[in-house]
Amino acid sequence: SGLKRKRKLLRFPTRKKKPTHTKYEDSREKASHIFSWMISNVDVKQFMDEYWEKDFLHVKRNNSQYYKKVLSTVEIDRILRKNYIMFTKNIDITTYINGVRKTHNPEGRAYASTVWDLYSTGASVRFLNPQTYSNPVWKICEGLQDAFGCFVGANVYLTPPGTQGFAPHYDDIEAFVLQLEGKKRWRVYRPRSQAEECALVSSPNLSEEDLEEPDLDVVLEAGDLLYFPRGFIHQANALPDVHSLHITVSSFQNNSWANFLEQAVPAALKIATSENPEFRRGLPLDYLSYMGLVHSDNNDIQKMDLRKLFREKARFLMDFLADMLPLDSAADQMGKKLIHDALPPILSHDERVRTIYNGGEHWEDNDVVNRVEITPDTKIRFLKANIARLIMEEDEIRLYFSTENSREYHELFPEEPPYLVIESHLAPGVEQLILSYPRFMSVSKLALEDLTSKIELTAMLWEKGIVITKKPLISGFDG
Amino acid sequence: SGLKRKRKLLRFPTRKKKPTHTKYEDSREKASHIFSWMISNVDVKQFMDEYWEKDFLHVKRNNSQYYKKVLSTVEIDRILRKNYIMFTKNIDITTYINGVRKTHNPEGRAYASTVWDLYSTGASVRFLNPQTYSNPVWKICEGLQDAFGCFVGANVYLTPPGTQGFAPHYDDIEAFVLQLEGKKRWRVYRPRSQAEECALVSSPNLSEEDLEEPDLDVVLEAGDLLYFPRGFIHQANALPDVHSLHITVSSFQNNSWANFLEQAVPAALKIATSENPEFRRGLPLDYLSYMGLVHSDNNDIQKMDLRKLFREKARFLMDFLADMLPLDSAADQMGKKLIHDALPPILSHDERVRTIYNGGEHWEDNDVVNRVEITPDTKIRFLKANIARLIMEEDEIRLYFSTENSREYHELFPEEPPYLVIESHLAPGVEQLILSYPRFMSVSKLALEDLTSKIELTAMLWEKGIVITKKPLISGFDG
Amino acid sequence: SGLKRKRKLLRFPTRKKKPTHTKYEDSREKASHIFSWMISNVDVKQFMDEYWEKDFLHVKRNNSQYYKKVLSTVEIDRILRKNYIMFTKNIDITTYINGVRKTHNPEGRAYASTVWDLYSTGASVRFLNPQTYSNPVWKICEGLQDAFGCFVGANVYLTPPGTQGFAPHYDDIEAFVLQLEGKKRWRVYRPRSQAEECALVSSPNLSEEDLEEPDLDVVLEAGDLLYFPRGFIHQANALPDVHSLHITVSSFQNNSWANFLEQAVPAALKIATSENPEFRRGLPLDYLSYMGLVHSDNNDIQKMDLRKLFREKARFLMDFLADMLPLDSAADQMGKKLIHDALPPILSHDERVRTIYNGGEHWEDNDVVNRVEITPDTKIRFLKANIARLIMEEDEIRLYFSTENSREYHELFPEEPPYLVIESHLAPGVEQLILSYPRFMSVSKLALEDLTSKIELTAMLWEKGIVITKKPLISGFDG
Amino acid sequence: SGLKRKRKLLRFPTRKKKPTHTKYEDSREKASHIFSWMISNVDVKQFMDEYWEKDFLHVKRNNSQYYKKVLSTVEIDRILRKNYIMFTKNIDITTYINGVRKTHNPEGRAYASTVWDLYSTGASVRFLNPQTYSNPVWKICEGLQDAFGCFVGANVYLTPPGTQGFAPHYDDIEAFVLQLEGKKRWRVYRPRSQAEECALVSSPNLSEEDLEEPDLDVVLEAGDLLYFPRGFIHQANALPDVHSLHITVSSFQNNSWANFLEQAVPAALKIATSENPEFRRGLPLDYLSYMGLVHSDNNDIQKMDLRKLFREKARFLMDFLADMLPLDSAADQMGKKLIHDALPPILSHDERVRTIYNGGEHWEDNDVVNRVEITPDTKIRFLKANIARLIMEEDEIRLYFSTENSREYHELFPEEPPYLVIESHLAPGVEQLILSYPRFMSVSKLALEDLTSKIELTAMLWEKGIVITKKPLISGFDG
Repeated sequence: SGLKRKRKLLRFPTRKKKPTHTKYEDSREKASHIFSWMISNVDVKQFMDEYWEKDFLHVKRNNSQYYKKVLSTVEIDRILRKNYIMFTKNIDITTYINGVRKTHNPEGRAYASTVWDLYSTGASVRFLNPQTYSNPVWKICEGLQDAFGCFVGANVYLTPPGTQGFAPHYDDIEAFVLQLEGKKRWRVYRPRSQAEECALVSSPNLSEEDLEEPDLDVVLEAGDLLYFPRGFIHQANALPDVHSLHITVSSFQNNSWANFLEQAVPAALKIATSENPEFRRGLPLDYLSYMGLVHSDNNDIQKMDLRKLFREKARFLMDFLADMLPLDSAADQMGKKLIHDALPPILSHDERVRTIYNGGEHWEDNDVVNRVEITPDTKIRFLKANIARLIMEEDEIRLYFSTENSREYHELFPEEPPYLVIESHLAPGVEQLILSYPRFMSVSKLALEDLTSKIELTAMLWEKGIVITKKPLISGFDG
Repeated sequence: SGLKRKRKLLRFPTRKKKPTHTKYEDSREKASHIFSWMISNVDVKQFMDEYWEKDFLHVKRNNSQYYKKVLSTVEIDRILRKNYIMFTKNIDITTYINGVRKTHNPEGRAYASTVWDLYSTGASVRFLNPQTYSNPVWKICEGLQDAFGCFVGANVYLTPPGTQGFAPHYDDIEAFVLQLEGKKRWRVYRPRSQAEECALVSSPNLSEEDLEEPDLDVVLEAGDLLYFPRGFIHQANALPDVHSLHITVSSFQNNSWANFLEQAVPAALKIATSENPEFRRGLPLDYLSYMGLVHSDNNDIQKMDLRKLFREKARFLMDFLADMLPLDSAADQMGKKLIHDALPPILSHDERVRTIYNGGEHWEDNDVVNRVEITPDTKIRFLKANIARLIMEEDEIRLYFSTENSREYHELFPEEPPYLVIESHLAPGVEQLILSYPRFMSVSKLALEDLTSKIELTAMLWEKGIVITKKPLISGFDG
Repeated sequence: SGLKRKRKLLRFPTRKKKPTHTKYEDSREKASHIFSWMISNVDVKQFMDEYWEKDFLHVKRNNSQYYKKVLSTVEIDRILRKNYIMFTKNIDITTYINGVRKTHNPEGRAYASTVWDLYSTGASVRFLNPQTYSNPVWKICEGLQDAFGCFVGANVYLTPPGTQGFAPHYDDIEAFVLQLEGKKRWRVYRPRSQAEECALVSSPNLSEEDLEEPDLDVVLEAGDLLYFPRGFIHQANALPDVHSLHITVSSFQNNSWANFLEQAVPAALKIATSENPEFRRGLPLDYLSYMGLVHSDNNDIQKMDLRKLFREKARFLMDFLADMLPLDSAADQMGKKLIHDALPPILSHDERVRTIYNGGEHWEDNDVVNRVEITPDTKIRFLKANIARLIMEEDEIRLYFSTENSREYHELFPEEPPYLVIESHLAPGVEQLILSYPRFMSVSKLALEDLTSKIELTAMLWEKGIVITKKPLISGFDG
Repeated sequence: SGLKRKRKLLRFPTRKKKPTHTKYEDSREKASHIFSWMISNVDVKQFMDEYWEKDFLHVKRNNSQYYKKVLSTVEIDRILRKNYIMFTKNIDITTYINGVRKTHNPEGRAYASTVWDLYSTGASVRFLNPQTYSNPVWKICEGLQDAFGCFVGANVYLTPPGTQGFAPHYDDIEAFVLQLEGKKRWRVYRPRSQAEECALVSSPNLSEEDLEEPDLDVVLEAGDLLYFPRGFIHQANALPDVHSLHITVSSFQNNSWANFLEQAVPAALKIATSENPEFRRGLPLDYLSYMGLVHSDNNDIQKMDLRKLFREKARFLMDFLADMLPLDSAADQMGKKLIHDALPPILSHDERVRTIYNGGEHWEDNDVVNRVEITPDTKIRFLKANIARLIMEEDEIRLYFSTENSREYHELFPEEPPYLVIESHLAPGVEQLILSYPRFMSVSKLALEDLTSKIELTAMLWEKGIVITKKPLISGFDG
């Protein structure tokens, strides 16, 4: 079928070696660079056109050090000793033996020696959300958010030699498998039917009988990449001679057009009902006697006519409804969701001193020093492209921001992300900052009525870590 | 504007005097008769075409006895003494003096003498849901359900001479005002804007400044009718010389096309997402940077192009969505809502002995007598047109029924109406009974595989009061 | 053992035939009469001394008509047809066959013919809380409340010939079995251990192996009485030739000294903590190292000394605590519980016209008539002894009352009974009325500061049905 | 009054300089040392006899470096930058100006520069629960737990020169004020009445009018200590020339005899009810007519007699109740509360390698190394005196432990601390370990039936960090 494709010829771009210390002005540019690095410098456009949501991609790099800095088992040992890691919440211990998948999680804290003891018995270790504990993983996931416009997460899998930890299954996320240590054999199967393409819900555990021949059967070695879309069944096992450690970077969970329309369509119905009296008219007095399951294959002529009229009226209303789709406010709601889900920004030392994270007042020698002021000449911009989102909601203008999010998903704000209420006379300034990103602009250039408003808005954004100044704010000097 | 209309010439049908004891075979026929009686024998078709949801109708009948049997203040006194009537839940005591609307409800039980004491001070008495306590009101509301395909309720208003109990306002229901005793001056105002036509939400209390001249200003006398649609502002006051008692019969609350689409559209989105992979595809990587409030009036050419593409894709999906509307199952969900809201059936003595309400086994002389059996020759039909609804839900076929509802709204089943699970081999029999209504059919004629199934289905429906037999079941005889 | 007793010689009082129409001034006197009638005119004092909570009592009366007016199966048939009776909530269908106890309740409404159908297959019918539907049962239970100072309930049991509906068990209530129709063999067993005496929790279903020989084995015939205390195991079966109908009147559930102390002791601890700083002193720094399970059988001398000191301190505090028991306010809380649980008062026609239930204003001929006034000469008293209870709570004086309770347990006030807030200047009047019960007193005699207060208090109590006037209130006349 | 006392002559012990690296075998010994250090080497026994819960104590030490290592404002600056500190949850910003106490908390994260900005305007900074972020504070609080047998917490107060942050008030905790930087004037007032002594609830903010002359008026300088009991009103203000930083170490919240009896008395009532049928007997039939508020000052002789009998019966039951107090299980419940509230243990490097925190298996060079075994010769003991508590609960033997607690109060276990279920054959081993603390014992010496049980119990305790081995467990060697 159309689902079976030939392997394509990959175009690798001529890499311009970037100087190590390149600072990206635009977080989307940085995101794009991380993306490119992750997919092994396959051309991003080609990747999006040919593989993204369409087919798997295996890149053999023959460079075991390529992903070396991301994470190692030694680092995991260190994380387990330094942090309070819990079984089930952070760590799963699993086996898949003779077609049977089992979980072996003890209760409570996952001490390193307990984890290694279980590993030594042949169990796989799945480390959930390593971005909470590992800075390099945080950096990758946080960076990619700006490439995908969507939350990016990760899991790490450590598998003892000669074992398999999970049953064949498919997931509801786009998966990038980065082999970190050792080797692993992967078998990947294209969707078995159209219904599995771009699946929005993960499959249960499958068994061998559910599967035909794999479309890909390959051994990943350290430094190799494997990408496959959601809906692609996969299974993987460590080879007898060596353990395997890989990280799966994931994205695009609940980020489909269907998810978008779940926001937009009910809102459209509210708008249409308010705008068009036809939506508010009563239903036909007797429609319950010709509409409904029991009446659906009725061949009573009179009923068929009535059913046709009913259908046409519904269709007419749907046409109007389609014109009412509030695409922008639905996009803003999706953007608010990203703000809610997002990892907080990771800042360089240089960035920290130009933001509230490490800038401004300090305590020294029994008193507060560096009592800074924002001046008309202070140059500011948003910290990152998607660091905040301006939304009309409940008759307010709100600026939702992700700077105070925890590295643990929804830990601090389980229900809603925090927001600033932007008074309407300040809103044009926020719009200006969003649209001018990544360029810096002087506070005096904000299109607001008076200087007080300009300073007020800037101070408000600065205090929530949303803006960065071009230079560190120093007492008595320009920022 | 188009909202202002001329009074129409009413066509009164030549009334064929029905014999008093007419029994309606079809509950819809009975409903139609009650409807016709209530609107004073104005031709129902003309009423629906010219007034329903469009304009008010005042019928002066010059027959103070016309609605006499519905309810009287003397009967209310009796109800207060015989039943446990509560302030706030069943009775409101209100005044509207100098533009100020107040509620004066004591706490607890509404004893007759307390109510009359308050009335004597000039307060109006609103008796909520009289159908729970008055048989004639129950009979009217229960009957009309089959005419409207929708819950029918009522409130009663008793106003002392020379007073007004309520501020001007509009409601979210179609209102039929039946003047029972005394007189009342009514002022009715057509919707002030398109947004108020067929309002789905009641207005707050309005003040005189909100109003222009009334479109109708008339004194209702006992026996008169006043109809006005939802969204029509109205106010009424008793004349100085006499009290006023009227009942407002109401219907079509939340029974609009918008309410229907609230059922159908989310269901359509689920179906479309499952059927069409385009709905499951990911959103464009960067749409958050060109969709959204901030970007909506952007005149950046590149963004405008991207916005156009986005809009077209959404429109394309909406067209597919419109084709997926599950009209029949949405109608069934609305039908289930009617089953949930409905008043229970009111039965004549003759009907009671042909149903489980008073048929079947009795206790006499220390033992059970009349141990009856359903036989192949027993003739049955559904008790009423909308007494039960067959629905596919959660992989089951369910027959929801209203026979066990309380006369108090949702009292016994606050969440969901009760239902029978119909095994799939019995479902054709239920369909047959629904479609053949109001004709009786022999149990043996049910299109089921064997006699056991036919008897089993009939017994199941009989035991829930859903079917009525042509003749009383008598031990040893045919039903 | 001490639990086995001889049958005592019953003293029957010489009955002074009361004239049929005796009206009891004091509801406690009426209660005492009903109690006496129920226990077959056994002398009440003797009953309380020799049987109550101590031993069973069987009275054979040889008068099958004695309890005739209480309830009959024919009346149950009528109740099932007239009311909305539900399986499980109101009716249980049970069997006990070969040592196995089963419940066979259908869902939903219990139509008479369905109940008789199940009965005809040999199942027992338990009708719960018949007082809600039967006036004579209501009258008995409501009357006895004043004899027991505690809620009185009932269940009715109908058993087909030759069957048994329940397994042997004991209950947590004092049980009075009144045989209404047919016959039933009862086997009763005294408590098997001290732990079962006056059990506060019912037993599970027991089996024959748990039992020795019964202490009573007797056949009850219509008109007979059987009393047994809580904690007494019992079982009963209908004889082969005739069905059995009996009612069990029950009381004293959770009405023990332990229940009283559950109110009083935590309150005493609060008082003692507030009054005595010793309760607020800190615990010894190191008590956790010598108190506790692990240290309880330690024979380290030093620890034993410390444990002794700790124990003595606790004992010293308990002595103080015992002096702080707020017996009166605990009794008031128990009284409030009775108000909450109580059946509403049942009134004669004569009483109804002298209370708000049927006295005061009426509606007649298009207007309110009999607009009555309370005057200084109006003579009033509380309607019944336990109709209301005066309680200090949350810095208010509250008069809780049971007049608005439903006949269905806790139906209208699931959490708390309703109450009037009595301003402190009116409280002496309420006290006076409580203490002077059952004597009538003139409103003018109320020990309040001025006439306005006297009228205000009387009106407040009248409007809640708490007081009754000596004569009906008539407009322009004395009450 | 008796509340006013003379200052006592303090006995300072001759201090034996402890070698810096002393390791305390017994955590209670270490706790006692920390306590002694904190109260400035006042003799602990003298302190407990003369001051604890009785009177304030001010120690002027003339050594500004004494508490230097506990915390400094510079360290707070560092904590604010490194951690996610929240206003309201972790930081309060307060002022007390002209008798008005205000809170000025922004929402969200407390960035250092925002805090210093607010401080610069004259507001006080209260840093709640610094033990979560500062290791020295954690060490003090965690250590003192074993001295007090009760949770120990802390707050830090930073006050700008010339200001006061809080109104006069008293607290519900024993307070040790350690002046860290600058100076502060303290005014302390002994309880104004017996009702305030050892208050179990904090006072609201008081005003000057509520106060008389202070009983202590003193300026604290860095290195000084001030202790005062709960119920002692206090207020403090920074002097004009210098800021003030102090930490208040607090304990004995809800750790009084009243709190103990709240556990013990209801349990005693349950036991008494089960043991003694007198508790289960019914209340007198008519007690509601002579007990209660209304009857309390009745001088009806008959009622007075009945009230006396009722009182005597209650008193008799209370005497029995007092004998039933389950002192040991109530102590265990208090001990469980300590386990729940407790800070987790802080371990030295040497201790970490002898426990699961850093002992046992490690990951090195692609594999697990140091796969250790517990042997009969391994020597173990509990990690700390109060690290776990053995409790009978719901028919299980449970060992509650605090090793997995978070440094943030109740963060991980909001409802209940975690526990191990100890099978009854292993319980004697746990008892032995508790009673033999702080001595090490060989696994083989555990009084259990067989070696398997001994190893099983030791492994279970080791895996939860409850026991420490005498020597690090090394693969192939004795522990």
